[in-house]
Amino acid sequence: MKAEIISIGSEILRGQIVDTNANFIAQKLATLNIELHHISAVSDNPEQLLTALKLAFNRSDLIITSGGLGPTEDDITYKIIAQALQLKLVKYQEIEEHLREIEKRLEIKLSPSNLKQIYLPEGAKVIINKYGTAPAMILEKDNKIICSFPGVPYEMKKLVNENLTPYLIKKFPPTIIKKSKTLKIIGLREAEVNDLINKCFTQQTNFTMGIYAYPEDIQLNLTTEAINKEKAERLLRDLTEKLKNILGNYIYGIDDETLEEVVGKLLKAQNLKVAVAESCTGGMLGEMITRIPGSSKYFQGGVIGYNSRVKEDLLKVPLGVIKKYGEVSEQTAQLMAEGVRISCQSDIGISITGIAGPGGATEKKKVGLVYMALANGKETITQKHQLFGDRQLIRLRASRRALNMLRIYLSGTQQS
Amino acid sequence: MKAEIISIGSEILRGQIVDTNANFIAQKLATLNIELHHISAVSDNPEQLLTALKLAFNRSDLIITSGGLGPTEDDITYKIIAQALQLKLVKYQEIEEHLREIEKRLEIKLSPSNLKQIYLPEGAKVIINKYGTAPAMILEKDNKIICSFPGVPYEMKKLVNENLTPYLIKKFPPTIIKKSKTLKIIGLREAEVNDLINKCFTQQTNFTMGIYAYPEDIQLNLTTEAINKEKAERLLRDLTEKLKNILGNYIYGIDDETLEEVVGKLLKAQNLKVAVAESCTGGMLGEMITRIPGSSKYFQGGVIGYNSRVKEDLLKVPLGVIKKYGEVSEQTAQLMAEGVRISCQSDIGISITGIAGPGGATEKKKVGLVYMALANGKETITQKHQLFGDRQLIRLRASRRALNMLRIYLSGTQQS
Repeated sequence: MKAEIISIGSEILRGQIVDTNANFIAQKLATLNIELHHISAVSDNPEQLLTALKLAFNRSDLIITSGGLGPTEDDITYKIIAQALQLKLVKYQEIEEHLREIEKRLEIKLSPSNLKQIYLPEGAKVIINKYGTAPAMILEKDNKIICSFPGVPYEMKKLVNENLTPYLIKKFPPTIIKKSKTLKIIGLREAEVNDLINKCFTQQTNFTMGIYAYPEDIQLNLTTEAINKEKAERLLRDLTEKLKNILGNYIYGIDDETLEEVVGKLLKAQNLKVAVAESCTGGMLGEMITRIPGSSKYFQGGVIGYNSRVKEDLLKVPLGVIKKYGEVSEQTAQLMAEGVRISCQSDIGISITGIAGPGGATEKKKVGLVYMALANGKETITQKHQLFGDRQLIRLRASRRALNMLRIYLSGTQQS
Repeated sequence: MKAEIISIGSEILRGQIVDTNANFIAQKLATLNIELHHISAVSDNPEQLLTALKLAFNRSDLIITSGGLGPTEDDITYKIIAQALQLKLVKYQEIEEHLREIEKRLEIKLSPSNLKQIYLPEGAKVIINKYGTAPAMILEKDNKIICSFPGVPYEMKKLVNENLTPYLIKKFPPTIIKKSKTLKIIGLREAEVNDLINKCFTQQTNFTMGIYAYPEDIQLNLTTEAINKEKAERLLRDLTEKLKNILGNYIYGIDDETLEEVVGKLLKAQNLKVAVAESCTGGMLGEMITRIPGSSKYFQGGVIGYNSRVKEDLLKVPLGVIKKYGEVSEQTAQLMAEGVRISCQSDIGISITGIAGPGGATEKKKVGLVYMALANGKETITQKHQLFGDRQLIRLRASRRALNMLRIYLSGTQQS
């Protein structure tokens, strides 16, 4: 079976956006062992789209399009698919109901152009879009499959994961089984991870391994292959164990697990409440912790002490200490963590204070210098980091390091 | 003239990398007014590449490939181009000299496979790669042009800028000049923007207009065309004015301007300080405001009142009010904004309290219900929103709406 992706949108051809949708779908197809032989991007010009769709329908068995499903004039995907496959556009009751339901729930009036969205090619298996208005579809015709998803990446990803993936697994049960896992690492650099691993693995035989560096973490992607699920899973388990021995608690999570989720689970299990005192990160640490539904169980809140008066009034950091050691100092970080622990009545207080740049550096304190502290009422741990990157990257890394400090503390271990 | 881009590399089709090269080249072509009608990504499988090249040579006048020029077995671009165009591969002396020169300069021994790189299709105008080993080329045949560049983004960009751009300008002196601008809109939905615009523009003649929906905003991209720069700019100015009249203060910024930047400028100009009181957004609003370097000039800090005790202790919202009206209510939002204004000694206090979901909804208060307030010491404005999306999207939209409320307040205008 040969698959093909068509990304639809003039903004791609004008170079205004990078087509990341095709990449996401390509990854999905790879995990399902479906051969992708072509990716195209075409504009929303009717003739060009028609030619591209006809060509795809000739040479491919599975065609996945993204884009061109919105309410505006230039959203012509369904119209042209119907034309290419010689199908009628018909009205789908369930889409209209969904749109009416949105109208009611959001107490808005949908515009007439939204109503265009209830017409899809005849025979389509409609996928109602819970994340927006544009419906997706899967359509089988002449032993071929054509599927269409919205161009908004967030909506497309959700709808592909929840609808296309299960559909394809059922339709084409894979013969060679691949199993993949991602180990998520924090506290080491890419080259350090690489060196540690190379010491232990000289040859890669029944698995592949890729190291990817992101601003948030390092991800180690493992894939094993075997003739059945059990064998592939056993290979993957063995490999994972070996890597866990090498990388220890630098591994914070597996696959979709996030650092804030891992920290949340630890806090909940230990029945502890946390509060944050943030300066240079301006609320980012609190924002990360509260991404997790139910975080109110263990997150009390916090103080954004951007100004030194707020540090004094709400965190009880004496202005004298700030004047003597500076806003960015171990002493200030320590008192901020202790102060927020008391003012928010939590078990643990965490603080961050640093120089995110580009201004604010001095001879001794460079951009990227960040102090953080963790107070539990008995003792206060502090850390000093010299972080790399632009303003937003430094803030992101500082917040992640503080979350990691909390994770290491809660796990009762240490990181060198 | 019709142009086409072909990105060559199995790693793109396996989803291992995002094809950013095509986007770079598309941008270049757009500035040169060359119509790009197709972008393809194909693997380094000889048959598939041959088919793609023949097809491209049939339907396009200018074909630009990237990738597949390296020294390894799967680098087959030149071989297959020669096959597709029925040309011989011939040895180019100047490439061999360049490789020998690299050997000498870096004191390394090039591998035999590097020597494959000295063979290019007959008639090619060779581009020596100062940034690596793989040579690029421009080849004219049968009134068509095919150009090949390495897949390494850094090398490709340098070689395109230094060689392809001047070549194309000389070959096709632009007769039409394009000018573009992006209007950034908040407070309207995509379909509403579309309807407002369609009322005023029945025909698009000397400009193109595209509406794009993002989680953060709606963006309206305008492009005008004329025979010279002055005319294109005047058209763009007139069009912008017309749209400003239609969309009013729903337009918050132009091109790269961000909402937090616009708000920051307004605060600075009016010499006002702001503080935030956040519940469901957990610090996101503070994080956004502090993305701007120098935001300490106008941002005091704030309180993340996730827990009702923190709302009571640090924001002075009486528990009685919370019990009577609920944490998510107009009354609580109002008192939070007034409270943070006083506790952080700012001119303006802004608050957000809502149900980000997925849990926490009741019969009367649905997921996505968000109250926000703005207090200036004389009066307190409140807003109620029913927002759409998952937890993180609702939080994002709530923070953006609060920033927008501040922008509208500071601009002294109103939004319907």
